[in-house]
Amino acid sequence: MTKSESKRSGVSAGKCASAASAAEQVNNGSFDVGFPEPSPAAKAKVLKQTSKESLYRRNAECEVYDDGTNTFFWRAHTLTVLFILTCALVYVTLLEETPQDTAYNAKRGIVASILVFLCFGVTQAKDGPFTRPHPAYWRFWLCVSVVYELFLIFILFQTVHDGRQFMKYIDPKLGVALPERDYGGNCLIYDPGNATDPFHNLWDKMDGFVPAHFLGWYIKTLMIRDWWMCMIISVMFEFLEYSLEHQLPNFSECWWDHWIMDVLVCNGLGIYCGMKTLAWLSMKPYQWQGLWNIPTYKGKIKRIAFQFTPYSWAKFEWRPASDLRRWLAVLGIIFMFLLAELNTFYLKFVLWMPPEHYLVLLRLVFFVNVGGVAMREIYDFMDDPKFHKKLGQQAWLASAITVTEFLIVVKYDPHTLMLPIPFSVMQCWFLGIFLILIWTLWRFFIRDITLRYKETRRRKQETPVDWDRQLGNGSPGAAGAAGAAAAVGVAGAAAAAGAAAAAGAASGRSKLNGSSDTLRQRKS
Amino acid sequence: MTKSESKRSGVSAGKCASAASAAEQVNNGSFDVGFPEPSPAAKAKVLKQTSKESLYRRNAECEVYDDGTNTFFWRAHTLTVLFILTCALVYVTLLEETPQDTAYNAKRGIVASILVFLCFGVTQAKDGPFTRPHPAYWRFWLCVSVVYELFLIFILFQTVHDGRQFMKYIDPKLGVALPERDYGGNCLIYDPGNATDPFHNLWDKMDGFVPAHFLGWYIKTLMIRDWWMCMIISVMFEFLEYSLEHQLPNFSECWWDHWIMDVLVCNGLGIYCGMKTLAWLSMKPYQWQGLWNIPTYKGKIKRIAFQFTPYSWAKFEWRPASDLRRWLAVLGIIFMFLLAELNTFYLKFVLWMPPEHYLVLLRLVFFVNVGGVAMREIYDFMDDPKFHKKLGQQAWLASAITVTEFLIVVKYDPHTLMLPIPFSVMQCWFLGIFLILIWTLWRFFIRDITLRYKETRRRKQETPVDWDRQLGNGSPGAAGAAGAAAAVGVAGAAAAAGAAAAAGAASGRSKLNGSSDTLRQRKS
Repeated sequence: MTKSESKRSGVSAGKCASAASAAEQVNNGSFDVGFPEPSPAAKAKVLKQTSKESLYRRNAECEVYDDGTNTFFWRAHTLTVLFILTCALVYVTLLEETPQDTAYNAKRGIVASILVFLCFGVTQAKDGPFTRPHPAYWRFWLCVSVVYELFLIFILFQTVHDGRQFMKYIDPKLGVALPERDYGGNCLIYDPGNATDPFHNLWDKMDGFVPAHFLGWYIKTLMIRDWWMCMIISVMFEFLEYSLEHQLPNFSECWWDHWIMDVLVCNGLGIYCGMKTLAWLSMKPYQWQGLWNIPTYKGKIKRIAFQFTPYSWAKFEWRPASDLRRWLAVLGIIFMFLLAELNTFYLKFVLWMPPEHYLVLLRLVFFVNVGGVAMREIYDFMDDPKFHKKLGQQAWLASAITVTEFLIVVKYDPHTLMLPIPFSVMQCWFLGIFLILIWTLWRFFIRDITLRYKETRRRKQETPVDWDRQLGNGSPGAAGAAGAAAAVGVAGAAAAAGAAAAAGAASGRSKLNGSSDTLRQRKS
Repeated sequence: MTKSESKRSGVSAGKCASAASAAEQVNNGSFDVGFPEPSPAAKAKVLKQTSKESLYRRNAECEVYDDGTNTFFWRAHTLTVLFILTCALVYVTLLEETPQDTAYNAKRGIVASILVFLCFGVTQAKDGPFTRPHPAYWRFWLCVSVVYELFLIFILFQTVHDGRQFMKYIDPKLGVALPERDYGGNCLIYDPGNATDPFHNLWDKMDGFVPAHFLGWYIKTLMIRDWWMCMIISVMFEFLEYSLEHQLPNFSECWWDHWIMDVLVCNGLGIYCGMKTLAWLSMKPYQWQGLWNIPTYKGKIKRIAFQFTPYSWAKFEWRPASDLRRWLAVLGIIFMFLLAELNTFYLKFVLWMPPEHYLVLLRLVFFVNVGGVAMREIYDFMDDPKFHKKLGQQAWLASAITVTEFLIVVKYDPHTLMLPIPFSVMQCWFLGIFLILIWTLWRFFIRDITLRYKETRRRKQETPVDWDRQLGNGSPGAAGAAGAAAAVGVAGAAAAAGAAAAAGAASGRSKLNGSSDTLRQRKS
């Protein structure tokens, strides 16, 4: 890249960023002042700018800003990788003696195939939404997802016995049935029967899972980026543990382990720290200077450290109650999230993996790296006004992996999954599902009809002049009126949500709705 | 996509196309008239428009033009595919009885993994340069390349015996040593010894390989898109057959089989038809209307047929002599092409595949689909002013596959490859390589020095005024002068080449150079 070109690209990136922030200011300005009925033209401008902004956000994260100082760092090095790969293959296959052990060669061939696939994928796979610390990092995890999914598919097609024994190829210590550790038993926090250490029950629970829970929820908060959704998933999981303790004994915990240790202390603290980090990330300036342009030594160190923070930041506004599609999507995400969490325990159980095995840990590390990208891609998919956008590749794979893991669990141990659920638990679940169903019906069907009825009555009282214009303005009066184009509706909702957040008026309820009801889109 | 959006995109695409053609007109206009020294401003404008045009070309082939009538057809259907995949997995794994045969299950698991990989790849892999008949078609072949490359890597890591026996898993009839068919023998076209049919030698050669050669070269011409390169590769391959007939007996053919049947009749005719098709493709208007917008029935049929022609057309101007990098690249392409052709024969030989086996045919079908994309990506890589562009994924894989196939040949039968080459053949090859080396030295090193010396002398005679401007103009006088920025040089050369072609002044020599020497780029 020549000097002039790099200058130009730098300038244009800067211009886009300032345009985006200008658009945000316009949003804040126009919606802050208690709905003083902005003119349709101004409104249209805001919408246009907001959609431009969201477009920009997407483009900005796809294209890495390159000020010409670290171009080498950003290059994919396709030819270099191809050359090194060729050299390695030449060395291994022509200069090394091939062993005569067929099984060993087959294993080696499979490992080599996986490595070549990673070589190809890391240099050539499609980039995802994240670019920091390097796009190749995320391409690597994408390729690992593909390999993991194919491994799961292979396991899924084996008989139960073969599948469990197949794990021996990975680690000869595997493939042996394991006893389950029971976390229940004596639930007294202060146990007067034990004179030497009456708090021994408490200390018993203080194992490696406490920091693991904390760290896990810290990362999950960074993925989901929403306090409410995190809390719901955290509490729901404890309910699931209660409901499934007749299947997996290690789900049975003391009441204070469930609610105080897990939900309040570990998860709660994790979510709290995650939210603090999110706030910092969303406030932090995203101005990236090339490493060689930074004069001081300390500045360079800081820049290198910041390479591990995101390139730019998108605040997630899930707005589950804003329309039926989003509501179902959020329910789906929570469902898949909980399923993935349950898979962690069930998969260990059916594949006879000891909980402290490194494969279990690797799977978690994998999900940490993959989950963030997948969640972002799902958010982009939901938030995109263009309906026929693709679901992101990592989200696609993460869903496929979760489903395949679950199918393995079902196939390998249908007996445990079919253990009859206690009647009281069933009652609770039916009640919950019933309530969700009722709320959905009321929120997206019945409420619409009442609102529309009120609207019609109000319309009759008013003069019918200016009706169309008010509809376009999205004034509170025009709220229930249907017929706004879906694309405009989404952009408008996003703008309003931004404004509402800026005004500090975001209560829990308005968070749910995403904005006041005024701009809610509807398919007429 | 809403109505208005689709309208807008349609208009913008049309505008870009017309801008591109306008740029071409400007090029033709300014360079046609015998170099009347265009003003620097006009020149700069031309350069800018040309680079814009090439940029547009690239963008246009990446983004499919969608006039809103067949949006459904273009969608990737990520969610649909995920849903169908899930249903298939649920059915196969939970409702079907798993057989107890471990080997069968392992095979089934591998096939299922490949199918899931194809599902993922066809919906989610990165798009290449081609979009017709559907981007998913080219994504499919990309994934097939990956699977094929991984298969080759696996084979490469086995012992020779195991590798040959492994083919039995694919087809139980394989894994058996085969006799080689000798194509040499009696070389009389008119054999007076055979009274019933004196031309029997001729009819003997008229087997299925004649149409195969013709079709192969027709398709290769469409890939390479250059008469000279096709002819060179075609003649070079016959030389290779002469040189290697001591290794593979089926390379030994009669002289008239080599030069008349192969080069002239089969290959020549194929190349001729290919060039005719190329001319038609480059002249044909690329105006794509949505199927539902075409009123007549006949028009609709025609439109469906045209779906199998390219979306737009890029004429390849390889210009091997324009600079050292391009020269080496073209040499590399010819080398890889010939290597891939030789692999066809050697791979059959070392893996004991009968020539008529369906896997041999499948490999050729695979290369037909992959080669075109790879060649286009290599051309784009060479032609791109931005130096750090990635080498396309399909080109990367095609190179890796060719190298891996060759390594398999070397590993599986080093004995045949090491058979001593006849001395006369060696002499010929050394002479050829020596000539190429000499030409390279003269063309890119010595000639530069003489030109630069002449330039300096001329410069001393002239007034030193306006030197820089003339350099920018690219007048014939400023030819040998170095220092023009690389990016500008490439764009200028492309523009000049287009103009030269339009003026009908493209001799073989100027084809080689790509343009007159005037605009040749050099790294000062």
